[in-house]
Amino acid sequence: MTSTPAELRVNAARLAARIDALAEVGAIDGTRGCARLALSDEDRAGRDLVVAWMRDLGLAVSIDGIGNVVGTLAGATNEPPVMTGSHIDTVRTGGRYDGNLGVLAGLEIIEVLNEANLTPQRPIAVAFFTNEEGARYSPDMLGSLVYVGGMGVEQAHAIAGIDDTTVGTELARIGYLGTAPLPAAAPHAFVELHVEQGPVLEAEQQTIGAVTGVQGISWTEVTVVGQSNHAGTTPMGLRRDPGLVAFRTGAFIRDLAEEIGAPQVATMGRIELHPNLVNVVPAQATFTIDLRHTNDEVLRDAEQRTLAFLEATAEREQCSVTTRTLARFEPVIFDDDVISLVERTADTLGHSVRRMPSGAGHDAQMLARVCPTGMVFVPSVNGISHNPTEHTDDADLEAGANVLMQVLLELAGGTTEAPR
Amino acid sequence: MTSTPAELRVNAARLAARIDALAEVGAIDGTRGCARLALSDEDRAGRDLVVAWMRDLGLAVSIDGIGNVVGTLAGATNEPPVMTGSHIDTVRTGGRYDGNLGVLAGLEIIEVLNEANLTPQRPIAVAFFTNEEGARYSPDMLGSLVYVGGMGVEQAHAIAGIDDTTVGTELARIGYLGTAPLPAAAPHAFVELHVEQGPVLEAEQQTIGAVTGVQGISWTEVTVVGQSNHAGTTPMGLRRDPGLVAFRTGAFIRDLAEEIGAPQVATMGRIELHPNLVNVVPAQATFTIDLRHTNDEVLRDAEQRTLAFLEATAEREQCSVTTRTLARFEPVIFDDDVISLVERTADTLGHSVRRMPSGAGHDAQMLARVCPTGMVFVPSVNGISHNPTEHTDDADLEAGANVLMQVLLELAGGTTEAPR
Repeated sequence: MTSTPAELRVNAARLAARIDALAEVGAIDGTRGCARLALSDEDRAGRDLVVAWMRDLGLAVSIDGIGNVVGTLAGATNEPPVMTGSHIDTVRTGGRYDGNLGVLAGLEIIEVLNEANLTPQRPIAVAFFTNEEGARYSPDMLGSLVYVGGMGVEQAHAIAGIDDTTVGTELARIGYLGTAPLPAAAPHAFVELHVEQGPVLEAEQQTIGAVTGVQGISWTEVTVVGQSNHAGTTPMGLRRDPGLVAFRTGAFIRDLAEEIGAPQVATMGRIELHPNLVNVVPAQATFTIDLRHTNDEVLRDAEQRTLAFLEATAEREQCSVTTRTLARFEPVIFDDDVISLVERTADTLGHSVRRMPSGAGHDAQMLARVCPTGMVFVPSVNGISHNPTEHTDDADLEAGANVLMQVLLELAGGTTEAPR
Repeated sequence: MTSTPAELRVNAARLAARIDALAEVGAIDGTRGCARLALSDEDRAGRDLVVAWMRDLGLAVSIDGIGNVVGTLAGATNEPPVMTGSHIDTVRTGGRYDGNLGVLAGLEIIEVLNEANLTPQRPIAVAFFTNEEGARYSPDMLGSLVYVGGMGVEQAHAIAGIDDTTVGTELARIGYLGTAPLPAAAPHAFVELHVEQGPVLEAEQQTIGAVTGVQGISWTEVTVVGQSNHAGTTPMGLRRDPGLVAFRTGAFIRDLAEEIGAPQVATMGRIELHPNLVNVVPAQATFTIDLRHTNDEVLRDAEQRTLAFLEATAEREQCSVTTRTLARFEPVIFDDDVISLVERTADTLGHSVRRMPSGAGHDAQMLARVCPTGMVFVPSVNGISHNPTEHTDDADLEAGANVLMQVLLELAGGTTEAPR
């Protein structure tokens, strides 16, 4: 006998306890944040903890060749599973909710079903994907990209990180070079719960975001080479200063983003000068440009204007420029039915809800290539993320997890009390 | 019987051999440059080599509490010595002539006197001073500053470096925490031979620069604190980006220097963002501003305009700013008699010569506080310095060393053949 048990609710304390326990791994002293860069020792420790929880919950755990981990609760049928999940790697100054919430809410939902002795019609899978953040290896969302066949596993293994390690070597080192086939079989649907990481829900006093898609992302690494020289004896007119090219470009992209207007954003978040000394005109500047917009045409235009400015500035300074694309994702539009289901479910559960695009990239945008996909957002206090002070109120975590559970059960075709 | 042996000449091959041998210590692979940051293991090895040469030449070697090393050739009298010298520490991407030439030319002159069995009337001292470059510890010219009493030795020992070591600890570690008294007794005069590190002599086809003084130097370290946040989800208008403040300031000081005109120079040679990741608006930017001018009034005005711009820009970005003076030296004017002596000597030896200010700071500017002081410049090919490709032609090295020798002998009151 099949039912969709609308009365089921997550255990908010249990969910919070798992979030807190995982945040202890790689905790940043004196803060609520954590640092678990992808495939680091801290990431391994976090993975080991989550895998142990998966096994305790009776999930069948599989690991693929890019280190994605999927724990599956068997369904009454062998149809493709409904999948949820996210990532557990963090940036160097990460909060405790980004990514982790989506994975641990998935486990909490499994535990609720276990307690109620309910079996979903379709299997329900909870995944965490490798290197979502891209803080150690580019591109970001690497694990989910490989999962859906967007990049070959050999190519992914060869990627070098900011510390000159490679993905393949580090996967093997931490014991997460698995054998599950890649690309993976497409799930029936994918829904990811995530903190908004922006200020919109809080500002509009909404509890749930029904995410309509993800803005396009363009990451470029720029290297400008000039002429190192003495800062005291080189007249301004004879300088070939790659640092200046970087600085002018950093100011330009801010002005450009303001001119284009929202939702255009532009960031120069990383820069290194060489030799980086007070009294030496640098020989080389390496920096990154992060441009995002929901409209790919606007995004391409911003890219072209940035490149034109960069090249003209470098030429005036008699410097050479090379650029490397670290990541380039077109805007993604999620599945209409899933968006509506999220919206309707939130409404049914009595939570305020609004449709909104995601400003950040998420694993869900990769899964959207192979199956109907959506996301559930909950508010981020002050819009802060990628920061140890990242926070979401317990009531919002609970609301998001309950919406996710009902959406997953609906997509799974309900539950049965058939023996597990 | 006293004479001023005008026929004495340095042995250019022997001088070049010592320069090359010292450049092997801390050599940068695949280049002619070297990296011997002050008080590093490489600096220690370079010091040990030069001290061994001093002892081989029969000099009395003294080491003081800031690690300055002075090798003295006894004179016929016990009057205060005529001193020459420079430094042997380098920037991280140093050439082989900057500093080293002045020290090794001094040793070559001693060897010429030894070979000729001549004793100067006054002692002749060859010194190398600690941490002239300031690439590891601020301020630069630290050793000579302490030598002349411009800073107490305890204060100097407490200075922390870019790597969080302190001067005192590192001096002890490398075995150069000596006991000679500080401040030192003033020499009779000080003359330093140095490569120009700029393009002027080469451009004007002159062999010798009779240095009239040193431009004023202002080094400031700026720390701007904003709000770390997600680069994709934080609208431009809500950002508090300290990196942007740095970038706009870097562009501003270039524009300011061009507006003021030569000899104003302005450099942002060092910058660090935290956390320095492609997809994170940084929480903090730390960077340096190097301003120099021969006129202290102009320099002060440039400092004030830079600070005003910085503060206004930070306020618009809702960031806080703190500044720290790393070094501040007023312009220095050398001794008229020494300048004229350098000029006259170069002329007598048949070398083209021009008076010129120094764009860089030098130990000589510290010695100028306590005794008549001057400098001899030789050309830098393409004006390049603080770079492994730094080069001065052998003929110019020889010319500069010969001018220095005759100037020192004149200041020492000539020589005698009295037994050594």
